[in-house]
Amino acid sequence: MFDLESITDPSFIKKLSIKELNALAEDIRQFLIDNISKTGGHLSSNLGVVEITIAMYYVFDPEKDKFLFDVGHQSYVHKILTGRAKDFKTLRQYGGLSGYISKTESKYDIWESGHSSTSISAMAGMLTNNPSDEKIITVIGDSSITNGIAIEGLNYIGEKRDKRAIIILNDNKMGISKSVGAFSKMFSRMRSTRFYRGFKALLIHILPKVVVRMFHRVKRSLKALIQYDNMFEDMGFDYYGPYDGNNIKTLIKLFERIKTHTDSPVVLHLNTIKGKGYKLSEEDKNGDFHGVSPFDPKTGEPLKKCNGIGYSQAVSNYLIEKKKYNDFIVITPAMIAGAKLQDFQAKYPKDIFDVGIAEEHATVMSAGVALNNKKVVLLMYSTFAQRAFDEFLNDICRQDLPVIIGIDRAGIVGEDGITHQGIYDVAMFSLMPNIIITMPRNEQELIGLFNYAFTSKHPIVVRYPRKSECVKSLDYTYNTTLDWELLKSGNKLNVLGYGSDIERINKIALDNNLDINVYDCKSIKPIDEKTLNNVFNNELPIIVFEQAVSSGTLYHKVLEYKEINNFKSKVYKHTFDSETLIPHGSLNDVYAHFGLSDNELLETIKEKM
Amino acid sequence: MFDLESITDPSFIKKLSIKELNALAEDIRQFLIDNISKTGGHLSSNLGVVEITIAMYYVFDPEKDKFLFDVGHQSYVHKILTGRAKDFKTLRQYGGLSGYISKTESKYDIWESGHSSTSISAMAGMLTNNPSDEKIITVIGDSSITNGIAIEGLNYIGEKRDKRAIIILNDNKMGISKSVGAFSKMFSRMRSTRFYRGFKALLIHILPKVVVRMFHRVKRSLKALIQYDNMFEDMGFDYYGPYDGNNIKTLIKLFERIKTHTDSPVVLHLNTIKGKGYKLSEEDKNGDFHGVSPFDPKTGEPLKKCNGIGYSQAVSNYLIEKKKYNDFIVITPAMIAGAKLQDFQAKYPKDIFDVGIAEEHATVMSAGVALNNKKVVLLMYSTFAQRAFDEFLNDICRQDLPVIIGIDRAGIVGEDGITHQGIYDVAMFSLMPNIIITMPRNEQELIGLFNYAFTSKHPIVVRYPRKSECVKSLDYTYNTTLDWELLKSGNKLNVLGYGSDIERINKIALDNNLDINVYDCKSIKPIDEKTLNNVFNNELPIIVFEQAVSSGTLYHKVLEYKEINNFKSKVYKHTFDSETLIPHGSLNDVYAHFGLSDNELLETIKEKM
Repeated sequence: MFDLESITDPSFIKKLSIKELNALAEDIRQFLIDNISKTGGHLSSNLGVVEITIAMYYVFDPEKDKFLFDVGHQSYVHKILTGRAKDFKTLRQYGGLSGYISKTESKYDIWESGHSSTSISAMAGMLTNNPSDEKIITVIGDSSITNGIAIEGLNYIGEKRDKRAIIILNDNKMGISKSVGAFSKMFSRMRSTRFYRGFKALLIHILPKVVVRMFHRVKRSLKALIQYDNMFEDMGFDYYGPYDGNNIKTLIKLFERIKTHTDSPVVLHLNTIKGKGYKLSEEDKNGDFHGVSPFDPKTGEPLKKCNGIGYSQAVSNYLIEKKKYNDFIVITPAMIAGAKLQDFQAKYPKDIFDVGIAEEHATVMSAGVALNNKKVVLLMYSTFAQRAFDEFLNDICRQDLPVIIGIDRAGIVGEDGITHQGIYDVAMFSLMPNIIITMPRNEQELIGLFNYAFTSKHPIVVRYPRKSECVKSLDYTYNTTLDWELLKSGNKLNVLGYGSDIERINKIALDNNLDINVYDCKSIKPIDEKTLNNVFNNELPIIVFEQAVSSGTLYHKVLEYKEINNFKSKVYKHTFDSETLIPHGSLNDVYAHFGLSDNELLETIKEKM
Repeated sequence: MFDLESITDPSFIKKLSIKELNALAEDIRQFLIDNISKTGGHLSSNLGVVEITIAMYYVFDPEKDKFLFDVGHQSYVHKILTGRAKDFKTLRQYGGLSGYISKTESKYDIWESGHSSTSISAMAGMLTNNPSDEKIITVIGDSSITNGIAIEGLNYIGEKRDKRAIIILNDNKMGISKSVGAFSKMFSRMRSTRFYRGFKALLIHILPKVVVRMFHRVKRSLKALIQYDNMFEDMGFDYYGPYDGNNIKTLIKLFERIKTHTDSPVVLHLNTIKGKGYKLSEEDKNGDFHGVSPFDPKTGEPLKKCNGIGYSQAVSNYLIEKKKYNDFIVITPAMIAGAKLQDFQAKYPKDIFDVGIAEEHATVMSAGVALNNKKVVLLMYSTFAQRAFDEFLNDICRQDLPVIIGIDRAGIVGEDGITHQGIYDVAMFSLMPNIIITMPRNEQELIGLFNYAFTSKHPIVVRYPRKSECVKSLDYTYNTTLDWELLKSGNKLNVLGYGSDIERINKIALDNNLDINVYDCKSIKPIDEKTLNNVFNNELPIIVFEQAVSSGTLYHKVLEYKEINNFKSKVYKHTFDSETLIPHGSLNDVYAHFGLSDNELLETIKEKM
């Protein structure tokens, strides 16, 4: 049994035998299951790359070479091998270990990302300026590599024919959930060429390197009788694969060959078993064990569960109900599981399009649907909507197409942390023409806003948070308007805000008998000028709450309205500014650190009264 | 000689003989050269697609099928055939014919874009809901198809195997200028497979369709002895090509076959000669005739020329000078010609990376360079920077990497119009952490800001407009700071602004003896609080000028500063709001229509005094 917590640096690996390395793999696997079941985190993807990561550290030189992990959610083994096992009890907790690559944690953490598919382009940048004997190795999944930016990166590096570039395609046939698209089918065909795979393996394992190289050249010029042509070779890469990515011995031989023999950039295609070593995770077809909350390792059941209907589930239920009487389609980029759309997919498989990790495509495709006069609901996380900024602006908003845009995980996201916060989308959509931006204060209002959205002649965003009250039941026929609502009246202060924060503030005000007006500004763009006029006319001070970066958002809109109309009321803000970076941690911990706990909200309001 | 101006709808084409169609092509070609030399516009790309467009209208049914033109800059022939020849004298002028697809112009204009590579995804959306006998045909160039979103679109449609999808790859080996990347080399290999091409042509032209189909299937299963495998077939498309895209007879036969024979989505690979029919354009290797200003058709020389150094040229000259004593690299996505970087490229070919139309890749690659501690200058147009929003935010700004970002064509762009305006980047960058946003008031200040940028430890944007005074000489060693400058003092009004507008306002104020303070707010983020304090302390009204959508930008920052510090001065604005859409037209015409002519600026200032 390895004492993983005593590891301080990865040099010990090079001294181990294959047998010891295999034992290490087993210990790491058990460590991951034990720890992640307690803390939550990315389970399946890390179980899949145990052997790859160990073999990388065995063959390459972490003091000189650079290891990149695309997205970074599969870097837990790398964290363990670089001396961070002892910190795993704090994983994804406030002040604890990040669930992604983090330069502040370790000198071995090179490329922070959190968003998929950037590592090949980052590698391209580093290759302009790294030593000629420094290899850069990136581990990238089969779904991530089909995203546009990754292909742009391959297109670039393939042409450069730079032998320092090594791309490990970690093909677990899954991505976050089931992989989609033509590339995915292509990978699947590559996987199925068993004869070829065996033959190639023979080459690598048995023939002397000079013969392998010659064969390679002959093959290139004769254009492949044995070799199955594929996209990567067409692009200039030396392609090796597919091989068993869970076999340390094979991996070491492969890496050794690649390290010394190649004179081109390499794509090494490895088949791995996502979730390997934990049965429930291995058998998971939906991606339920991709990212998990703390769970019982025996049953796989989450320890804490939304005891009722959360926001994502409410949207899914609503769409199923709505579908009974309305013709529309749903488009989502790789978020069937994350956005809880499995039920909708099961019921209306022809009317939901999971396009994979392709936010730009999903957005323009939605514009195409709307242009053909069909209603379309585009669902994505706030943080990934950033990937389609230009397509929202130019293709949907400029053309004023009435796409319904559901923005999930708006606001603080908790454990995923700094790269995943949903705090930019309000500012981002606020600068775009024609679009309506809304946020409901609770799940019932969410339904109301979606029902409004189905009547909208303009693009409309309905954003909703991860944190939920998990209500027991909902009226799916409930309607609401964009008018701001006075939830509670008083005589000392006007509180303006949106989303569940304003619901909480209302409750706090009622519980504490605060003599204040609480306004639900459910339409962030356009603002409700009639109600805002009333707000200013009562001449009480105003405080604007936004769980968002305030740049052209509600606070600025209120200030602008005041300035243009010569109102006098003082306007305070409780928002994030553009410099705010929000680290990982439980929602409650992060709320507390950013002045958003119930107590702090109460204090802030009392202070301004 | 066809009377092109008398065309009202495209139905006449179907009645013409091949000979007449060829004559029509020649007439259109001459018409394009005559007209574009007078109005300016996209010349080379339209000369290349004359035959393709004619053949599309001959074979397909424009009343039922949908014709998409990726980007839309190559849609002039389509405009002529759909009854708009008579409007070509107004091309790209204010109130005149758009240089791109425009739904308001014609029912035959289906997909507006302006930005590249969206047509395949738009087609994917339309295919969810179009009749089973309606074909959707898109014409997309060899550079556009390698952009990330286009590949995401191919990945999607290839898997769908939908016979209604026809993608015409217009391969002119050029893109905007020379194509780059591995895909480009792949296309080039496809082009060079002459035997195969001849064989395939034989199939299409001679064999009965049943044999072609059978052959197709046999080929698929035997995995190609004759057939050269390529990416498109790997992705599920029926691939035809490459064929001569300037031969109407061939094109008609091909289109007829595709129209009736195929049961899969199709990629039809056509070789065209960019600029065909105009010698100077055919021989143009730099992309000088891609988009042109009015020119003398005899000599190719522009009629009006920047008689001195414009902004883009100033940046290029500066970088050449700077390079003598500094080590840095330049990255740009397909803007060597547009950003006038040819001289730099000629002098330092190893230190400039044109990555093709791949803004996301360019941005992350720049982050990778900076992370390796090398200075990097990333140059792109304001409108295309929108494509890399998430990468600027997450990869450069969040990581606080000191990339120097030159944003060309900031502000109103003139003739390219609604989809190309550089009015969003200030709002977009304003919401991001760590980044500094600057704009110089003239070319000399541009040099100063670039010299400052080379010392910056944070990401920094230097934005500059298309409109230029074309100065005679510049001091490339000139330094400046981010402090706002009081250009002129007075006692009636504070004018705040940035860029060449504030230089013009200063001149207007001097010329008209206006008793006002003129401040050059060259640093838009962060604002210069010390100077802004002085501005508010003089208690004069303030007017903020921004040639940008004001959403979290200077105007909002000034309002916020006023509110927080309880200042009294009235703050007016002269900006665009999020709903502003700015059509095409000459810079002077558009300036006039948006209150930015010298006279209107004078009137606005006088009114506020």
